[in-house]
Amino acid sequence: MIEVGPNSYGKSAIRLVKVDRDQAPHRVRDLTIAIALAGDFATSYSEGDNSAVIATDTMKNTAYALAGEHLTGSIEGYGLVLGRHFLAAGREVDLVKVSIDAHAWRPIDSAPDAFTRDASETRKADVSVSRDGFLVEAGIADLVVMKTTRSAFAGFPRDRFTTLPETDDRIMATKVTASWGYARDAELDFDAVFDRVRSTFLGAFADHDSASVQHSIWVIARAILEAHPEVDDVTMSLPNLHHWTVDLSPYGIANDREIYVATKEPHGLIEATIRRADIGSVERPGTS
Amino acid sequence: MIEVGPNSYGKSAIRLVKVDRDQAPHRVRDLTIAIALAGDFATSYSEGDNSAVIATDTMKNTAYALAGEHLTGSIEGYGLVLGRHFLAAGREVDLVKVSIDAHAWRPIDSAPDAFTRDASETRKADVSVSRDGFLVEAGIADLVVMKTTRSAFAGFPRDRFTTLPETDDRIMATKVTASWGYARDAELDFDAVFDRVRSTFLGAFADHDSASVQHSIWVIARAILEAHPEVDDVTMSLPNLHHWTVDLSPYGIANDREIYVATKEPHGLIEATIRRADIGSVERPGTS
Amino acid sequence: MIEVGPNSYGKSAIRLVKVDRDQAPHRVRDLTIAIALAGDFATSYSEGDNSAVIATDTMKNTAYALAGEHLTGSIEGYGLVLGRHFLAAGREVDLVKVSIDAHAWRPIDSAPDAFTRDASETRKADVSVSRDGFLVEAGIADLVVMKTTRSAFAGFPRDRFTTLPETDDRIMATKVTASWGYARDAELDFDAVFDRVRSTFLGAFADHDSASVQHSIWVIARAILEAHPEVDDVTMSLPNLHHWTVDLSPYGIANDREIYVATKEPHGLIEATIRRADIGSVERPGTS
Amino acid sequence: MIEVGPNSYGKSAIRLVKVDRDQAPHRVRDLTIAIALAGDFATSYSEGDNSAVIATDTMKNTAYALAGEHLTGSIEGYGLVLGRHFLAAGREVDLVKVSIDAHAWRPIDSAPDAFTRDASETRKADVSVSRDGFLVEAGIADLVVMKTTRSAFAGFPRDRFTTLPETDDRIMATKVTASWGYARDAELDFDAVFDRVRSTFLGAFADHDSASVQHSIWVIARAILEAHPEVDDVTMSLPNLHHWTVDLSPYGIANDREIYVATKEPHGLIEATIRRADIGSVERPGTS
Repeated sequence: MIEVGPNSYGKSAIRLVKVDRDQAPHRVRDLTIAIALAGDFATSYSEGDNSAVIATDTMKNTAYALAGEHLTGSIEGYGLVLGRHFLAAGREVDLVKVSIDAHAWRPIDSAPDAFTRDASETRKADVSVSRDGFLVEAGIADLVVMKTTRSAFAGFPRDRFTTLPETDDRIMATKVTASWGYARDAELDFDAVFDRVRSTFLGAFADHDSASVQHSIWVIARAILEAHPEVDDVTMSLPNLHHWTVDLSPYGIANDREIYVATKEPHGLIEATIRRADIGSVERPGTS
Repeated sequence: MIEVGPNSYGKSAIRLVKVDRDQAPHRVRDLTIAIALAGDFATSYSEGDNSAVIATDTMKNTAYALAGEHLTGSIEGYGLVLGRHFLAAGREVDLVKVSIDAHAWRPIDSAPDAFTRDASETRKADVSVSRDGFLVEAGIADLVVMKTTRSAFAGFPRDRFTTLPETDDRIMATKVTASWGYARDAELDFDAVFDRVRSTFLGAFADHDSASVQHSIWVIARAILEAHPEVDDVTMSLPNLHHWTVDLSPYGIANDREIYVATKEPHGLIEATIRRADIGSVERPGTS
Repeated sequence: MIEVGPNSYGKSAIRLVKVDRDQAPHRVRDLTIAIALAGDFATSYSEGDNSAVIATDTMKNTAYALAGEHLTGSIEGYGLVLGRHFLAAGREVDLVKVSIDAHAWRPIDSAPDAFTRDASETRKADVSVSRDGFLVEAGIADLVVMKTTRSAFAGFPRDRFTTLPETDDRIMATKVTASWGYARDAELDFDAVFDRVRSTFLGAFADHDSASVQHSIWVIARAILEAHPEVDDVTMSLPNLHHWTVDLSPYGIANDREIYVATKEPHGLIEATIRRADIGSVERPGTS
Repeated sequence: MIEVGPNSYGKSAIRLVKVDRDQAPHRVRDLTIAIALAGDFATSYSEGDNSAVIATDTMKNTAYALAGEHLTGSIEGYGLVLGRHFLAAGREVDLVKVSIDAHAWRPIDSAPDAFTRDASETRKADVSVSRDGFLVEAGIADLVVMKTTRSAFAGFPRDRFTTLPETDDRIMATKVTASWGYARDAELDFDAVFDRVRSTFLGAFADHDSASVQHSIWVIARAILEAHPEVDDVTMSLPNLHHWTVDLSPYGIANDREIYVATKEPHGLIEATIRRADIGSVERPGTS
């Protein structure tokens, strides 16, 4: 017997720009949206029966059509509107996931109508809406950060394949992918909380002494959880973008942690969720 | 109370090329390897205690060091060697995941020592090794395929945001990411089975009439499961790379499914696992 | 006094797919087209006068509109049609450059209507049409090739910053960007000549002993020029994708040119044109 | 007779990070460097004679070795040091081109040792040094800018393939690649001039009414040339990243320039040099 297991379908890479010219500077929202539905769609696979399959083209149209009226506050709020729309659109739908990347534009000086795109960071919102409730996760992607001191890596086990020296002062650099889940409050001021969590993130990154990337994840996530009761858990995926001290001794030149080669391949990759222990059993909507 | 939840760490993007010159043509293996460990590493986060943290640099060294002796057969076999090595390397390690991408090189005509890289497809192996056993998943990535007839999409629900016309003859194109899990037999001839499953995949893709991407996933996966008892389940992630018929009527030119614009954004995305119903309860090693 | 110097404008990344279903297997053409015009457009800059500025949107429309009737033979031939069209479209136009990338699709077995995309290589055609004549350059891009023996690099000068050892047996790998210009014969069988030049390219790459990437460029280009009188010159841009032998001696393991690390950064880059000396003075259409 | 035509060789993608910890915040320089040599290297091609071929590996080593002492001011200044070094390194060298991309890092608040990478813009310097002199070009890449009003495109010719409506109010967005050449003064304060030119660039972009991308190039370049006598010419390559108003009328929704779809393919591409007429005859070092 062959059966359909976990599945979802939807539209990705919907590129939507909304310009509000009734303020100065104009407000530019630049989003990349993905929408995915899960539910009772087994016969669309096994029978080729499309009678319940909301076209992904319709999903795209809907994102544009609802943006005028509903993309007025946070991206989390707009994601909830889209999620609820598609949950209501078909009784076979059990779960709607809406993922929104927001690309920031900064006004040029005092111009009302000219902007540069801030490519240093992407704000993310992942909204899941099911018949039982909803979940909102906010996050940051594409943000590259560096510590030029106060980063160590020592005390690790050595075997016959270990050649890495211990160090108490290395460069630590990483491209941050971080997300955090909010307690279920649809009335949260998502924009304000995002700014506060982001600020805690950067402050903790800057302030701590790092014993390892793992340790940094803990310190930063704990700071967020301690400062922001709205946050249930923090997940990070941090590549360790190695900067190696260049050996200049063949040329008779000293190099006391001054000249480095930046590398992309290979890279360490550290991933963890840090959470409140007492909410570990909260069930999240899923495709199971 | 704040605690460490699910976590893993390791090395990614290890680029390894092995050349065996004792045959004609030479055998070139070109791999991108990722290794990740999970287990009892909570104090490496919360205490900055690295005493159990096998350095990711050591993981890289080990991949190179073991390749001479152990990268002699399938990438699945080499992945199992690496997985078992790291499981034995530290008692805190509960699970080792080894992911290997194999990039193919084709000899130029009858030359023994000159090759072109086949960029059309990546062969993948994901090996998980735990104290309880192991799991091997093989797969294909980066393979772009197209059906120029026998692909339809009709009978879908229409609401006020639906503008897509029904069609009984569209182009279907997708970039395949597919994987399949093997029953737990470490002695499987992984190379031979891979070739057979791949052949079934392409044959089923070419032969069937598609009612939707969902339907195509079912047809292809069912063909694989029916033909290959070694395979437990098949998972696919298929972006729908839309090709739209160009409206040439403003210029007085007919276009009967001849001239298309190929697009990347936005794209549909269909993901599903198709599996044997009777093995649905097999437990897989995980990080839970 | 400020003036407009060299300039051009046009449309890039026009993605066009044409399917001819009147043969088995179907013929799939998959092109990425760029069109650029140069000429007497100074006032479009200095005065904002668009009266001569053929809209780039119109260029895109034209590429689709003419494909049915005119994209029937080689991409070079289609490029000439587009070039002549735009040269005739406005008297301010002095030069039209049409660049076409062709992406190949291979039938799956004997299927008439199912294909895999061959991503290993892009065929290119650059066509320049002016009031004085035209120039056609054909080429290859994205083709990655490797020699596993018969590649050396020795005898180079050493100064105090030189640490690279001499080698008489290294891996040479590169991602080929090559183009060659044809004598001005619009009736050339561009498809047949392309296949022959490509075959000479690969054969020469496979057969020669390389003293350096520079030397390889010469050997391959000379072979093309000697075998193909239609070709005036050959230009290559070859990154040297270094493969470094891994030092396994710290682990007591020998590595006699067997295990390599493949790298992307940094890379050598060798660029040269090899040409017939007696045609060096042929003038080419340009923007001067 | 077959001969070697224009050629060059060198090392690209040299990734160098220098950290100066003697100030607060630390000064982080993050560069990607390419070095290319041209000159009397014909026999390295035709004879495989490497006796004059400074190894590209040596070029890389030299960039790291000289950074401690010489990467102390502007990247233009460091480029001149590298250029002169390689011009002196071999008598066959006629021309050295050094291209440097500088990636900016911003301190996190008042931290002395923690930074975020500013990915919104790359500062570029291209330095050419020959036996006859030198040329310095500075520039900007990767900067995405948008005008939300005061951009028009009308008055263009219409033929049977023209469907684009005229508009007096569109979004104009582009990813800037701009460079400008300096009069030959090696003692210029390159950092200060760069900042001033960049400021003029952004100010002119924000302030002007655009009749087309061509017109915008003129207005911005003229503003730079008028304000900065150090600058001889300005070259821009501007893709027109089209934002199309979404037609929401099928859903009974008005869309008065509020909701747009952002696209990448196809895109317009406008390239031009704007220059002082009276210096048009200055010869530049080249490979001819």
